[in-house]
Amino acid sequence: MSEYPVIRFPKPPVIHSYAGIAGEKEGAGPMGHYFDRIIPDPSFGEASWERAESRLQQEALALALQRGGLQASDLDCIAAGDLINQCTVSSYAAKGSGVPFLGVFGACSTMAESLLLSGVLAASGACRYAAAVTSSHNSTAERQFRFPLTYGGQRTPTAQWTCTAAGAAVVSAQGTAPRILGGAFGRILDLGVTDATNMGAAMAPAAADTIARYLRGTQTKPSDYDAIVTGDLGAVGTSLLFDLLGRDGFDISGVHLDCGAMMFDPDTQDTHAGGSGCGCSASILCACLLPALSEGRMRRILFAATGALLSLLSSQQGESIPGICHLAELAMPEGGAVC
Amino acid sequence: MSEYPVIRFPKPPVIHSYAGIAGEKEGAGPMGHYFDRIIPDPSFGEASWERAESRLQQEALALALQRGGLQASDLDCIAAGDLINQCTVSSYAAKGSGVPFLGVFGACSTMAESLLLSGVLAASGACRYAAAVTSSHNSTAERQFRFPLTYGGQRTPTAQWTCTAAGAAVVSAQGTAPRILGGAFGRILDLGVTDATNMGAAMAPAAADTIARYLRGTQTKPSDYDAIVTGDLGAVGTSLLFDLLGRDGFDISGVHLDCGAMMFDPDTQDTHAGGSGCGCSASILCACLLPALSEGRMRRILFAATGALLSLLSSQQGESIPGICHLAELAMPEGGAVC
Repeated sequence: MSEYPVIRFPKPPVIHSYAGIAGEKEGAGPMGHYFDRIIPDPSFGEASWERAESRLQQEALALALQRGGLQASDLDCIAAGDLINQCTVSSYAAKGSGVPFLGVFGACSTMAESLLLSGVLAASGACRYAAAVTSSHNSTAERQFRFPLTYGGQRTPTAQWTCTAAGAAVVSAQGTAPRILGGAFGRILDLGVTDATNMGAAMAPAAADTIARYLRGTQTKPSDYDAIVTGDLGAVGTSLLFDLLGRDGFDISGVHLDCGAMMFDPDTQDTHAGGSGCGCSASILCACLLPALSEGRMRRILFAATGALLSLLSSQQGESIPGICHLAELAMPEGGAVC
Repeated sequence: MSEYPVIRFPKPPVIHSYAGIAGEKEGAGPMGHYFDRIIPDPSFGEASWERAESRLQQEALALALQRGGLQASDLDCIAAGDLINQCTVSSYAAKGSGVPFLGVFGACSTMAESLLLSGVLAASGACRYAAAVTSSHNSTAERQFRFPLTYGGQRTPTAQWTCTAAGAAVVSAQGTAPRILGGAFGRILDLGVTDATNMGAAMAPAAADTIARYLRGTQTKPSDYDAIVTGDLGAVGTSLLFDLLGRDGFDISGVHLDCGAMMFDPDTQDTHAGGSGCGCSASILCACLLPALSEGRMRRILFAATGALLSLLSSQQGESIPGICHLAELAMPEGGAVC
């Protein structure tokens, strides 16, 4: 297959402000102290889990706007998505805002997709401020994709835990905040994995493809980055990613982080292969990675969120699971703080 | 609410090539002679309806590429979406192509959303060629959103018929084909309609909002356009649209077309309020409207596809139906043929 060009912004857009929030289990994990807010009540006081997840998006966006000194009416677009059928969590979250809405779907890769898209919209002048917003909720996703919540089925060792979390990032054409230098929309790779409890294996080939393409396209090497962050490959997928990139001549083990592996403590939180869900990488990006860039603890990273593009129906029909990985390169402007 | 700016391309991207295809029932209707191909077998020789719908997308894109003298590898991005849970129809359709994939969701407004987005991607230089692809299939959508196909439930007079159809448009930065002069991503409006068999009523407020905003934003009037084309409001939604725009001081009745109303013969095809589905407006855009622009039978149109952002779960939970309408202004370059 031919090599697709990567996106490089001649005038990089900036991530003006951001916020990442999470539920109680996520808040009790290693990332807990980073989150801008922890929501102890999984129902967020709402009548349905779906409404609760919409509230997560609204809350993350409200915090991001507040920190950026903005109001919802300053946004020209909200680019948002989630795991729930027809992205209703995102559209119900945005409908009260009155802001133009762009529904996107990339499963757990959605934050990288909406962030890069917001970058294109802001850099091209189509939007002054565009917000990328993404969420997941354990109680909406698990019952939709796998089993009824009260069923109590045994989870396999490769299974990941859908995070209850959301992230929001407001992108604009200029400023001094972390910039989106470029990125790549991912290709869909499907190597025939049919086990819906082994997402890491389904997504690893796509992650390897996009990361290798970006490194080649930018003529950079893994050590040029403070971190190459994948979305939620978890323990199983990470090991496969290293193998696949190794065959391409790239060793990223020294700079690799995986949001799925970072979210929970494997010894005490019993989440098997780690966290997953659009909100997993989105909340860690917005609560941990972007602050690290802003504060000079990191200078330049690749944010490569991965998604498994399956549905309950496609699983039931025996279809294999296509994986995708969208990538955004994030950096502080030249002359910014160094870690 | 404040007035959001519309998008105007300083250097308008062009719709390099396009194709619209449809199923047998759609082919037997008033639009039948426009379609580039009619697929008589609703299963398209595949083992599932979902695979058949993926084939519709692949076929429409293959035709559009062929007409444009392109190959899939010339595309830098496929922006695609559909009505099916997790947009699996689109991702399964695209996965074999190896082209970077951007999943979008706007329900039946998806073609306008992906077309405008492809315009932004091409105009900004992020992509050389970007394809907007959308489909729907009666047999995938009806069983997912309403009743099992063999149930034989009575349809209400306001019900619309999900079309089996697909459209594909390849967008690039320059050329002599119809141009995308600008557009607007829609805001979500929800006036409390909870009847999932009355989509027209749920979507009309959003259509009125986006069309009025675009007319004000561009300081144009309805008579400046050869047609203002809505997606699939059908008979009920169209009447509401005229009322709502009338209150805003716009009378579009002289130039209005609705793809949902155009698709079927109300006297002989028994589809009640008309056609619907992402493929309805996408196939008519690509098989009828774009050729009319290319051949000089039309000069300048607004393509305003509407979507109802509901899911089966949101309906079951008693949630009302949010509507959205994305819009793209399409025109032949100055000096092109006049109708």
